[in-house]
Amino acid sequence: MSENQTQSFIINRAATSKIENIDFENLPFGSVFTDHMLYCDYKSGEWGTPVIKPYEPLTMDPSSRVFHYGQAIFEGMKAYKDENDDVWLFRPDQNLTRFNKSAVRLAMPEIPEEVFIEGLKQLINIDKAWVKKGKGNSLYLRPFMIATGHGVIAAPSGQYRFMIILSPSKAYYQGDVKVLIAEHYSRAANGGIGAAKAAANYSAQFYPTLLANKQGYQQVIWTDDATHTKLEEAGTMNIFFRINDTLYTAPTSERILDGVTRKSIIDLAKRENITVEVRPVLVDEIIEASKNGSLKEIFGAGTAAVINPITGFSYQDTYYELPRQDNPMALDLKNKLTDIQYKLAEDTFGWTIKI
Amino acid sequence: MSENQTQSFIINRAATSKIENIDFENLPFGSVFTDHMLYCDYKSGEWGTPVIKPYEPLTMDPSSRVFHYGQAIFEGMKAYKDENDDVWLFRPDQNLTRFNKSAVRLAMPEIPEEVFIEGLKQLINIDKAWVKKGKGNSLYLRPFMIATGHGVIAAPSGQYRFMIILSPSKAYYQGDVKVLIAEHYSRAANGGIGAAKAAANYSAQFYPTLLANKQGYQQVIWTDDATHTKLEEAGTMNIFFRINDTLYTAPTSERILDGVTRKSIIDLAKRENITVEVRPVLVDEIIEASKNGSLKEIFGAGTAAVINPITGFSYQDTYYELPRQDNPMALDLKNKLTDIQYKLAEDTFGWTIKI
Repeated sequence: MSENQTQSFIINRAATSKIENIDFENLPFGSVFTDHMLYCDYKSGEWGTPVIKPYEPLTMDPSSRVFHYGQAIFEGMKAYKDENDDVWLFRPDQNLTRFNKSAVRLAMPEIPEEVFIEGLKQLINIDKAWVKKGKGNSLYLRPFMIATGHGVIAAPSGQYRFMIILSPSKAYYQGDVKVLIAEHYSRAANGGIGAAKAAANYSAQFYPTLLANKQGYQQVIWTDDATHTKLEEAGTMNIFFRINDTLYTAPTSERILDGVTRKSIIDLAKRENITVEVRPVLVDEIIEASKNGSLKEIFGAGTAAVINPITGFSYQDTYYELPRQDNPMALDLKNKLTDIQYKLAEDTFGWTIKI
Repeated sequence: MSENQTQSFIINRAATSKIENIDFENLPFGSVFTDHMLYCDYKSGEWGTPVIKPYEPLTMDPSSRVFHYGQAIFEGMKAYKDENDDVWLFRPDQNLTRFNKSAVRLAMPEIPEEVFIEGLKQLINIDKAWVKKGKGNSLYLRPFMIATGHGVIAAPSGQYRFMIILSPSKAYYQGDVKVLIAEHYSRAANGGIGAAKAAANYSAQFYPTLLANKQGYQQVIWTDDATHTKLEEAGTMNIFFRINDTLYTAPTSERILDGVTRKSIIDLAKRENITVEVRPVLVDEIIEASKNGSLKEIFGAGTAAVINPITGFSYQDTYYELPRQDNPMALDLKNKLTDIQYKLAEDTFGWTIKI
């Protein structure tokens, strides 16, 4: 292990790489990690020096606040390698902005841009060999922050750790996705933390999703908790509905995550002269559109899968199958977006950042 | 360290105790821990052998699910020492039942009674010297469970750790508590996890509570997220309102924790021939009762403070001061309940369990 300091980062490189032991053709999502990780500790009201070091376990006191009071937030991002072996990030500024919004809502400290963006660049650069070429291949990036202060008292922690870990991934394909529209359970409250990318929101979803799985549905479409009449998110993704040739998606709110893929899809669709209406989408109108044949597609949008087409949905014990499309809008938008990400098409938006 | 096995527990005792270094007259709540801890790991669908060993840090992979998807639940309990040096638990069966309800809602495995109850008894017995005599002194017990499986994929973990840590505590006195009735923020959704004692629920409360603190209020009274017209919890406690000589408290629901202190107060009040009405309590009726002088007391009920009297509340920028009582019902109920816990009064309910 050699130690040196550049640009206020402490960097300890691993003596050897484990990359030769990895089967890159056979990567279960999010379970293999690269040689290095980044961490940066916050205490006494300030962030310390970011450290890049070999990936290794953390030492945590059993009374660490994250275990008891759930202060934990994260981002999901990807790095892509183009044909010239250059590595690119996709709209990292959007992830930083959202991360810091999540931090404020969870009473955690905001992370400086220098640590988040420059940290990502430095870390990915060191583990650049783990970013494989070819469409579908990517390096999944997981910045996160946890409360590390000690003590079982229900109050914000005084100490935090920001980390970045990296996981090589293949194209994420879930197969046919049938979804269940939530009639009882929900993921977010008005005035709650649904707009934050908080660990807490995910733990709330697992049980209702397991119940849906048992009925043969892969995901739940979440509805507003007060009336269950508005369609808000699909599993851990934002959701789009195509009625005739118009795309509909719910506006972001306190209950809905401001997804980077979501907003990119909206911009991309508009550029392609597709009409996009951002407004509350009601269960009733989707049922009606399904019955009269105007409902053409439903898809989820998120970083891991980019776009995930939904094949049908269930509501009040009735299953509504979506028609097969010869040229689905979901696939077209997915290709156009990933072409930008992989530098196979011109990035007219300025979304891609070279490392 | 000596090792032996009793009743299927593996017990490794600490070679020395740190108890001599502890200032028991000066204990910040929840920050000093005893010599030993208990853990029990779940994998491949079953719980392993519980282990009692010296209190020490955990080794956690950075991709541990609890850091990313928030599967974490806990209980708060206390052990009390009577004048004969016997140590008592208060209604531990209720905590076990609630812990397992929380586990189900968070898609975590239920813990066997043998591990939870017998684990508490064995662990407390080993650290019995840490339970100090005298009303107000107690040993705060913190059973909790975290998701320890690796991998950043948003699905329930396959591995979990159940733990118990113990913290000696003095009487918990917060001073005058003024509260702010929530008009925008909320802690729980319909169909959400508000009834679970989940870490996730606490992280959602910190930011709105900090905003209230800045306005001079110590806690927030949470209202229902859809209409903000129903009074549901106070900070991390259940809430009671005394109008004339009747006590009112909200019914438990998906949004409200089924507090052990709450239900004990209800039973105790009924035994004392106090009328208790368990029904939704509206903001409007409390404002009206304050104005016409019939609102006598408001108090929070929870394990840490037992009963915490509230001196006044704010709603829509108006502050409502509560009248001082010569013989507050809150204090009377608190004394009667703690007398049962410390074995100073007959336990007519069968709530106390000797270790």
